[in-house]
Amino acid sequence: MNDSTERDGRPMTTVACAQLALGVGDVAENLAAAEEAIEAAARAGARVVVLPELANSGYVFDSVAEARALAEPLDGPTVTAWSAAARRHGVTLVAGLAELDTDDRVRNSAVVIDPAGELRAVYRKAHLFGTEKDFFVPGDEAPPTVDIDGVGRIGVMVCYDLEFPEWVRRAALAGTELLCAPVNWPLFPRPEGERPAEVTKAQAAAAGNRMYVAVADRAGDERGVVWTGGSVIVDPDGFPVAGRVPTAGSALLLASCDLGAARDKSLGAHNDVFADRRPELY
Amino acid sequence: MNDSTERDGRPMTTVACAQLALGVGDVAENLAAAEEAIEAAARAGARVVVLPELANSGYVFDSVAEARALAEPLDGPTVTAWSAAARRHGVTLVAGLAELDTDDRVRNSAVVIDPAGELRAVYRKAHLFGTEKDFFVPGDEAPPTVDIDGVGRIGVMVCYDLEFPEWVRRAALAGTELLCAPVNWPLFPRPEGERPAEVTKAQAAAAGNRMYVAVADRAGDERGVVWTGGSVIVDPDGFPVAGRVPTAGSALLLASCDLGAARDKSLGAHNDVFADRRPELY
Repeated sequence: MNDSTERDGRPMTTVACAQLALGVGDVAENLAAAEEAIEAAARAGARVVVLPELANSGYVFDSVAEARALAEPLDGPTVTAWSAAARRHGVTLVAGLAELDTDDRVRNSAVVIDPAGELRAVYRKAHLFGTEKDFFVPGDEAPPTVDIDGVGRIGVMVCYDLEFPEWVRRAALAGTELLCAPVNWPLFPRPEGERPAEVTKAQAAAAGNRMYVAVADRAGDERGVVWTGGSVIVDPDGFPVAGRVPTAGSALLLASCDLGAARDKSLGAHNDVFADRRPELY
Repeated sequence: MNDSTERDGRPMTTVACAQLALGVGDVAENLAAAEEAIEAAARAGARVVVLPELANSGYVFDSVAEARALAEPLDGPTVTAWSAAARRHGVTLVAGLAELDTDDRVRNSAVVIDPAGELRAVYRKAHLFGTEKDFFVPGDEAPPTVDIDGVGRIGVMVCYDLEFPEWVRRAALAGTELLCAPVNWPLFPRPEGERPAEVTKAQAAAAGNRMYVAVADRAGDERGVVWTGGSVIVDPDGFPVAGRVPTAGSALLLASCDLGAARDKSLGAHNDVFADRRPELY
């Protein structure tokens, strides 16, 4: 049973992206910020909550040792607490973390936790940005999709992954209705009045595959790195339904989304963004 | 020898996109509009001029017979006149046309003509939009690239092609520095203040491959179809350098472009949009 509101007889799902100010190594504070955001989102009716990349550890490590020390296994304290929060509030949670995997490798990962608090999927970032190669082993597995009862099919990838349309297409072809992307977007200069290029790419990812894309970015700055504050929720037409303008501070984006609409890939009367591909030529 | 202006010691190339009001079947008027635009662009210093899709014939055919009757061979009057205009003004011309190919098939094509007036490439649209399947045989060949002395490497595709990132990537990996796209974008509704989704996709195509993208759209309307007027020239950062706001009327977009910059695929100090791909996973 879907307890979301309806629009034109279709169930609507409230999706939340929590743009958080976090600190590298501030594990307890980072967890508190996440728990507070999850609670606020749930109170506002959210059924899906997206947190930033590396939401347990912070991003700007000053050494390999620091990254490793902050990485946690999937049964560690952060994921355990996130699971409890998801269950307590009955939300699906998608969140990024520094993970120590079972082979003792440090990963830039994201988890999908369902409203029962169950860990349904872990994804390891495949396209590493900046100096991340110094800290993380890249993933080799496709972005997972998770079916959540009464919500829809959730896909997940992390930050720079979203800038590779081939990777986005894989997630889309797997039936993703809502692609959730924990990110930490360092601020690049841009002309007055322009959206960050990363947002434009997220919009194109949504429109090109006719699915929703929900991005949770960071607020503020960290060890000299200023974050873009570009959190955004994009609809299948490619238009932002929350986060039209980036904001530097902490923010909770909320949008009422018709996730079922993302199963329809038609574009006007004669086209279909999947069927019109020419994979034999690519 | 490059007679373009320089910026910071690098040669700059003026690129023009001519957004034209054309009429279906108005072959002589359409040619006159093209010749006028080419002359105006050249006078403004353009070295490359892009015209819309189906610039000889117009777009909204009412029958297969009409489309066939308007299609011309590559040695027909329109391409012959375009070649003469390119030579006369010393510009590279990229323009869309309804083509009758040597096997008597009707194609939605684009030609690249160099400043000597030589036909250097013909491309047949591979991704057909709307009812185009009724009128055209789709192409099966990759988008060509053409090296123009003193300018750079020009790539070409047509309209809906640009919305398939896999196709754009092929053109980019072939070394395209300036991807020219003749288009006819029918107007779709969009929220106030938003760019057309097609423009967003063109921006993502540019940013995701760090190349220039130059789009020439149509002005006005034709047999009840209103055109978007979304002509745009996008730089390798994904920002419009001309055509920031769509305009309904005829327009000549001009931008001074550092095409050589499109050979550099680096993104910040540690990344490269080509090298960071994981093709083994796609």
